[in-house]
This record gives sequence, C-alpha cells and structure tokens, in this order.
Amino acid sequence: MFVLALTAEIISIGTELLLGQTVNTNTCFLAEELQSLGIESYFQTTVGDNTERIHEVLEPALQRADIIIITGGLGPTPDDLTHEAIYKFFKTKPSLDKNYLKQIKNKFYLRGYEKMPPMNKKQAYKPKNVKWIPNKFGTANGIIWRWQKNPDKTILTFPGVPKEMYQMWNDAAKPYLRKISKGNIFYSTTLKFTGIGESALAEKVKKYFDLKNPAVAPYASTGEVKIRVTAKARTNKMAKDLVLPVVKNILEKTGKYFFGFNDETLEELVAKKLLSKKKTIAVAESCTGGLLSKRLTDISGSSKYIKLNLVTYSNEAKEKLLGVPGEVLKKHGAVSSKVAALMANGVKKLSNCDIGISITGIAGPSGGSKEKPIGLVYFGLAKGNNIKTQKILFGSNSSRKEIKFLATQFALNWLRKEI
Amino acid sequence: MFVLALTAEIISIGTELLLGQTVNTNTCFLAEELQSLGIESYFQTTVGDNTERIHEVLEPALQRADIIIITGGLGPTPDDLTHEAIYKFFKTKPSLDKNYLKQIKNKFYLRGYEKMPPMNKKQAYKPKNVKWIPNKFGTANGIIWRWQKNPDKTILTFPGVPKEMYQMWNDAAKPYLRKISKGNIFYSTTLKFTGIGESALAEKVKKYFDLKNPAVAPYASTGEVKIRVTAKARTNKMAKDLVLPVVKNILEKTGKYFFGFNDETLEELVAKKLLSKKKTIAVAESCTGGLLSKRLTDISGSSKYIKLNLVTYSNEAKEKLLGVPGEVLKKHGAVSSKVAALMANGVKKLSNCDIGISITGIAGPSGGSKEKPIGLVYFGLAKGNNIKTQKILFGSNSSRKEIKFLATQFALNWLRKEI
Repeated sequence: MFVLALTAEIISIGTELLLGQTVNTNTCFLAEELQSLGIESYFQTTVGDNTERIHEVLEPALQRADIIIITGGLGPTPDDLTHEAIYKFFKTKPSLDKNYLKQIKNKFYLRGYEKMPPMNKKQAYKPKNVKWIPNKFGTANGIIWRWQKNPDKTILTFPGVPKEMYQMWNDAAKPYLRKISKGNIFYSTTLKFTGIGESALAEKVKKYFDLKNPAVAPYASTGEVKIRVTAKARTNKMAKDLVLPVVKNILEKTGKYFFGFNDETLEELVAKKLLSKKKTIAVAESCTGGLLSKRLTDISGSSKYIKLNLVTYSNEAKEKLLGVPGEVLKKHGAVSSKVAALMANGVKKLSNCDIGISITGIAGPSGGSKEKPIGLVYFGLAKGNNIKTQKILFGSNSSRKEIKFLATQFALNWLRKEI
Repeated sequence: MFVLALTAEIISIGTELLLGQTVNTNTCFLAEELQSLGIESYFQTTVGDNTERIHEVLEPALQRADIIIITGGLGPTPDDLTHEAIYKFFKTKPSLDKNYLKQIKNKFYLRGYEKMPPMNKKQAYKPKNVKWIPNKFGTANGIIWRWQKNPDKTILTFPGVPKEMYQMWNDAAKPYLRKISKGNIFYSTTLKFTGIGESALAEKVKKYFDLKNPAVAPYASTGEVKIRVTAKARTNKMAKDLVLPVVKNILEKTGKYFFGFNDETLEELVAKKLLSKKKTIAVAESCTGGLLSKRLTDISGSSKYIKLNLVTYSNEAKEKLLGVPGEVLKKHGAVSSKVAALMANGVKKLSNCDIGISITGIAGPSGGSKEKPIGLVYFGLAKGNNIKTQKILFGSNSSRKEIKFLATQFALNWLRKEI
C-alpha cells in the first residue's frame, strides 16, 4: 500500500540566530513534532530579519513542500517583519483587525500598562481571508496562511519565543495539521549501547542500514552509541510490526553491549535494580572526583539506597577512612587493582552497605607515565564476601572530563550487570 | 573607510537534525565564530544525509557566499556521505591517501582494537589537490576545498561531533579564515555574574543596550547571567578602545554580582585562590550528591588542594564520620543551619584541611514540607576557628538537577569571596 505523506519545511527568522547568540531549539522541537505527525521534512533554513532574504528562502520552500512553518519576526519592533515579508511575497495588503487590536490593548491593561505602546498596533494586521493562531501569553498572534493565493500550500507563522510558540503549536497548529495530513504514522525504537565504538557496532549490523522501512541508523556520543529503528505505516500497529523484528535481530547480534531502550539511562537502570533487590550501595571514588556519586544521586529517591559516598583523592584518606594499608599504596600505587579492591571493600564496610564500588585512575592531563598512562582506570566491586576488579584503558585522546565520564559510564554499566 | 567583508553560509548535514533528535548547537558555535572573525553570514541550512538534497542546498550557497562551512556526514557508516556528495557535485573522483589510512589504522590500534573496521577505509579518500583538516580525536578528517574546480570559493567540511569540530575549527579552519578574510575585526568581552536574575541585572545597565558600537547584550543561563560587549573596528586596538570604557562603566554598577570574564568558571577562580593562598579544602555534601566535589575536581591539578570529600546522604554518616551529634540531627533536622555548621567543621577536622564547606538541603522533587520546602539549602564554611552559615531558598520551580547545580554555584561563589 502506498500513502503519500505531506512534506514540511521549517524556516527560522532572526538575526540573533545568524550571530550565534541563540541556539535554535525551536527547530528541534518542530522537527520532532512533524515526525510524530508523520509529516516528512527535508530542509530547515535560518535567515535574518530581511525581506529580500526571507523571499529568497520562501520561494524554493514553497516549491518543495506542502507546509511551511515559520518562527520569529512577529514582534512589535521595526526589525520584526515576517508578516510584512509574506504580504509582499503574495503582493497583498493586510487590514486592521479591530477586534484583535482591542484584545492587544486589553493584554497591556492587564499587565498594568496605562496604554498599549504604539508600535504594537502592527500586530493586529492580517489579510482578511486567513486565520489567526491565537497567542495566550504574548501579543504576537501567528497566522494560518491557507488561502486562494496559494491553494495547495499552507504557511504557519509563530513568534520565536519558545513558550509562546509551543502553546500556539499545541493548541492550534498541531490539531490543524493532524486534520489536513493524511500521512503516515512513524514509530521508532532507540537501542542504547555502551562499551563499544560506533564503527565496531555498525560493522555487526551493517546489513540493516540498507533497509528502507524500517530505516536503521546509528548515532554516537561520548561513552554511548545508539541505533534507531524507525518505521512508517498507516497505523501505529503496522509500524510497530515493522520495527520489532528488526530490533530483535539487532539485539541478537549486539546484546552484549546493549543496556537500554529510548531515554533510559544507566543510572536509572542501576537505581531500579537496587530498589527491586533492596540493596544499598556506597561509592569510593578517586579520579572521577564525585561524578559517580552525582550521577547516582541525580535519581530522585536515591537516599533509599545511598547512605555515604567518599571522594578519597589523597592516599591518606584512602588509608585512614577506607583502611587501604600504607604499604599496599606504596608497593602498588594508588592506581592499581589491589587498591581498587581494598577501596571497594573499605567503603562497603565503612558505610554498612551491601555493595561497595570504587574507581581509581588517571584522568589527566598530567600525572600519566609509561606504565600508568592517562586514561588508565581500575574499578573494584565488593558484594558479600566477593571482590572483583576491572582494568580499563580509556583513550588518552580523551579530555579529563571525558575520562571522568567514561569511567562512571563503565562503573554504572558494570553495576547494572552485577547487582 | 570601506572594507568589503567575506560572506559565509553554514550547512548542517544529518537526518537526526531533521528528525528533531539533536539540537543544532554546532551552527550556533560557528555563527558566533564567524561573527568574531568579521565574516558576514546570512543563511543557515540543514539537510539530511542525501546526495541530491545536499546538492540542492550547496548550489545556491555557492552562488551567494564566499565560504561554505559544512558539518556532519563524515563518519564511516554508509549514511555518511558528505564528501561523496561533494565529489559528485564537482564531478571529480577522490583517491586513497595511504598515509592517512595508516594513521587511521594506528588510531584503532591505540584504542586497543586488533584492526580497523573495514568501513573506516573510506575516511582516507580525498581528491589529491585539496587539504585535510586534521581531526585529533576521531578518524573523520575534514577538508579545505580550495581548488581550481571553484577558484573563488572555499568549502570547509567538519564532522558533526561537537568536540571534534571545535578542535578542527580552532586548530586549522579559524587560522585559515583569519588569513583569507580582510574584513573588520570584532572584539568582545563577556562579563559573568551570579546571584542576580537577568532582568534585575539588565535594569541596572539598560541604558547601554541602546549603544550600537560597542553593542551590549545580556544572556542568561541557569545560575549565571552574562553581559557581552562587542565592538567592530578596523584594528584590534580600535575595537578594544571602544569596549573597555563601557565594560568599566557596567562593572561600576554591577560589581557586587560580577565574578569573571569570558570563559572563566567559578571552579577555576576558586582553584586559583586556593593555589595562590596555599590552602586545602574538603567538602561534605548532602543534597548536591557529589556535584560540588565533581566541579572542584574538574580542574586539572586539583589533587594539590583536595584530599577528601564526603557525600553524607544518611544521618548515620553525618554522625559517624562528621561527628554531628544525633541529638542535633533530631532536634534541628539534617537540613538546618546547625547541621551545616557541624558538617563543615567535621569534614575540615576529618580531612585535616584548612577549609571545610558543607551543603545540606532539599533538592526534591519529594521530601519538601511547609517549613522546609523544596529548594531550601543550608551552607556551612569552616576556616580556622571560624564557622559561618548561609541559608538560601532556591525557586521550587526548579528541577532536582537545577537545584543541585544552583547550590554548587552558590557554594563556589561563596568560596571565591571567602578564601
């Protein structure tokens, strides 16, 4: 069965975007929304508050797409000229909506102003035969430009203020687009992996990258690789039925490195396991400096399983609080398997917790040597009478902050498997 | 005097941007950089990993601008096809750079791989007469496309991974562009503030916002407000002479809340003070869960002044390790001025450091009450025989992570002033 999906393009208007003063989060929001409506989007454009250049991007967008979504340039100041640029593009003149002008005046009255600043009057102009998109928070209404000037296309205009745009999108534009789009549903599942690089993971599942529906694509970030499987179909169920078998096949080949679906984080998964098994945990960190503790306590309710964590930077602290004997520190060095084991066991005892985990390593940029290079990290895990250790060499290309993050990523993944 | 500035356009390539999975921070970074180089930029475009559509945006960009900056699509997987799209656009064929292939193989070897995954080989191809932009962190080199195929224009390609792109931009592209651009110089100074909101700060210096050269603009983020003063002139000195008097005037009105210039962070400033005064510090955190320790240890060389930090989540840990008496915890509660003072003093003694700082509060989203609402945080600072405390109520609108960050921001700023 073949269903033709609508296509849309997003145009952001604002000189502050061209100057790099503002990160364009509106486009990200709108892109995700279009995706969820089954509307395809192939281009995003940003342009300044300039009539000629707005026309220059509007022209090809109207040729390529069914729907043009424009944000920015609806304010009252002279440099806000998005609506004016559209009148000029269609060679039309707007008229004053007296009713809306009254509402604008009332908004100022309610905010405690004696009267509306004169420059806001222009926000009450629109061509008669197009509809407002009401703005609940501000005075800058948007417009649904669906009219005889351009019968097969729709332009939607929004202010650039994210809060106003979100409200107007959700209350007016989204229901409107849902009505006119006869497109497909998209269903997607993201698989999250750690402990393996992007290309090594991709190598294992590369044959799926040629699929069209579902489409399979990898994304990498520090200490994590994702594979996203997205299908398009007429119903949610049909799309899901396309996605699930491919997810299953991918997991068969990569299961060892897989840790979670979609937005799941390692700290959440560790928290869930600790809660369900009613276990408590204590951390003794050295090179990660508190980051493992921070990540574990980012989870609301973590005081149920965390009582005490230590950042033992100095040998003295390792000796005094964790009971790592001075001679062991001297003989093996603080960055060693022996010390990692004793730290984990020491913090377990000191805190009276079920599990003790330790991290000791060299985060750089100084402190590395030939035998113990930057990026070398030892981990210890004490549980019952059992102590395990791991040694990992993270790439010495990584920065201090990255090595800290990668080490906590490894520790959390190890905990996830061992609890 | 009239100087014609070069113009540039930024093209982002990546289906994840069209799907709204990633916020496009690269474009914001590049736009700001172009601005600082005096290179004008009027258009930004985003397009998916698709050869035809890459050509569709490359064509008008090359007509309009002198320099095209492209990010994304240099990875090893089959959907990374930016360089291939450019070969096809110029109807040319690349050749294998055997020397660079060796380097890629070596990068994998250093990361502990037995051999390079075969799909990475394509990253070693480029036309003979264009130059690599070396990638220090990853295997995806960029290219400076300045060649006879397109003699008046320059295309620069970068991977989409921000860290790699930043390094390649700073090390290779920026010096190159500085050399070829004959535009104006931009000089800017950013003033950083904490402990005051954006509009309260803006109110104090609003008259400067009308200036054109230098231009003055405020930017806010969690726990921090910045004011940026930017001037444009023919020489660096002329631009600086425009900026400095305005900076001085602004600081006269806002000095109380000012903490640093440009990229300076609170943790860096605290580190500098500790080092210059040869003081050591110890942290006892509760609600911030290790974040203060993490921020202090993000500074390279922090082992010089940090020996031991504690995350004492439970009352038992506060009692046993920090010596906070059980009856004080019972009478005043763990979130109290008394306990903050005793925690700071306790960790100072336990660690034998010069300064002890403590944080105890309610980060939410649960655990708040009428007397002790979410966002209530106490701080203690022990130095010599002196113990001070502070009580701050952070907005209960803030999320758990925000309250944790705001509390560490306050603690660092307090330390900066008190050391």
